[in-house]
Amino acid sequence: MTAPAYRRLSVEERRAQLLDAALSLFAHRAPEDVSLDGVAEAAGVSRPLVYRYFPGGKQQLYEAALRSAADRLDQCFAVPQTGPLTRRLSLALDHYLAFVDEHDTGFAALLQGGSVVETSRTTATVDGIRRSAAQQILLHLAVPTPGPRLRMMVRTWITAVEAASLIWVDEGKHPDAATLRDWLVDQFIALLAATAATDPETAAAARAALALEEADGPAGLLARRVIPVVSEAAHLL
Amino acid sequence: MTAPAYRRLSVEERRAQLLDAALSLFAHRAPEDVSLDGVAEAAGVSRPLVYRYFPGGKQQLYEAALRSAADRLDQCFAVPQTGPLTRRLSLALDHYLAFVDEHDTGFAALLQGGSVVETSRTTATVDGIRRSAAQQILLHLAVPTPGPRLRMMVRTWITAVEAASLIWVDEGKHPDAATLRDWLVDQFIALLAATAATDPETAAAARAALALEEADGPAGLLARRVIPVVSEAAHLL
Repeated sequence: MTAPAYRRLSVEERRAQLLDAALSLFAHRAPEDVSLDGVAEAAGVSRPLVYRYFPGGKQQLYEAALRSAADRLDQCFAVPQTGPLTRRLSLALDHYLAFVDEHDTGFAALLQGGSVVETSRTTATVDGIRRSAAQQILLHLAVPTPGPRLRMMVRTWITAVEAASLIWVDEGKHPDAATLRDWLVDQFIALLAATAATDPETAAAARAALALEEADGPAGLLARRVIPVVSEAAHLL
Repeated sequence: MTAPAYRRLSVEERRAQLLDAALSLFAHRAPEDVSLDGVAEAAGVSRPLVYRYFPGGKQQLYEAALRSAADRLDQCFAVPQTGPLTRRLSLALDHYLAFVDEHDTGFAALLQGGSVVETSRTTATVDGIRRSAAQQILLHLAVPTPGPRLRMMVRTWITAVEAASLIWVDEGKHPDAATLRDWLVDQFIALLAATAATDPETAAAARAALALEEADGPAGLLARRVIPVVSEAAHLL
């Protein structure tokens, strides 16, 4: 008697396979329309097997899928701590937008919360992703324990990135991901400069970051493109 | 026999009184902890009277309270269409932050959604507030039917304002409202300039807006404060 193919997977492999199937389902429909039957079918396994791995049912599966997505999102900002800040942010945004592109509206909605199976735990998971992203950006800025203004600026930018990427999905992924990425990096530089205007700590971080930027990089391009726009407003200077 | 005081109110006045009481309760506790009994008690009326006005119970009351809040938020950006853009935005943000200050965490949470009584209707109401705010800002920019980039920029800023004001409430309302307002106006100018760098329509809107700004206004102050920070990065120009 030959054991069915799925017997060959280890517990961890099986768990990962079921989470993949669940993520894919959550990505394309509302959480309330995802069932354990659907996950079993998508993974090509029996419903009891899904229950054996997730005895808490759909809620447990949802939270595990969210946790798995959170782990992947956490990796987005894990880029080398060297080179120009804009290069690091661009790389992180490439990872993030690839994730958004892959999971589409369904998972975006899931990350936004507001699903019928939402609990304080799922909200905490999503908030944890945001906090972790903020902390990693602050490490890239070499200010691991910032004052309130710089911290608020980074958190504000993260929210802006989320909002822009949800709008992006909503509008059929126009402009392309690279254009959106460049614009979000431009926004970061702009917010950093605007916050530097009134916060000495941010000013020091901005100076240090700009010193590492290159003339043909995003900061140089942005500076040369903004000057013609503001130079007409000489009455302000 | 003297009629009780509450009999003297008109239907509209009574309704407004009940909504005020409901808003105040929603402002200070989670929606799931608000009851019609509590609203009746806070308004000093009987529970049957609350039910007479809101026969749909808590859900109807919640939606009416949200609608009433939405109407007030809609008024925030209804400021005169004259003078420098930063003065108009400052005035609108003063209205908005006064609303946030008054309603605190509870109502902020309600506006974020994620409550147990949330429905697609409440989500639509909250999204409607955002859309309306975006449209009013675009009118102030004199670009009522913008291209995707400028529209995305305005919507992104609105999200940033929401996020910053939620963090602000969370952090005990530091810095003071006026400082937060000025910083959010600075962010708008910075985002406008950064988007102008790659979007001709935004560049035209930015030029027109900057032409109306005054040297001692927010745009002038920001420009003069940012220059020392970026001037050290001459290698980028």
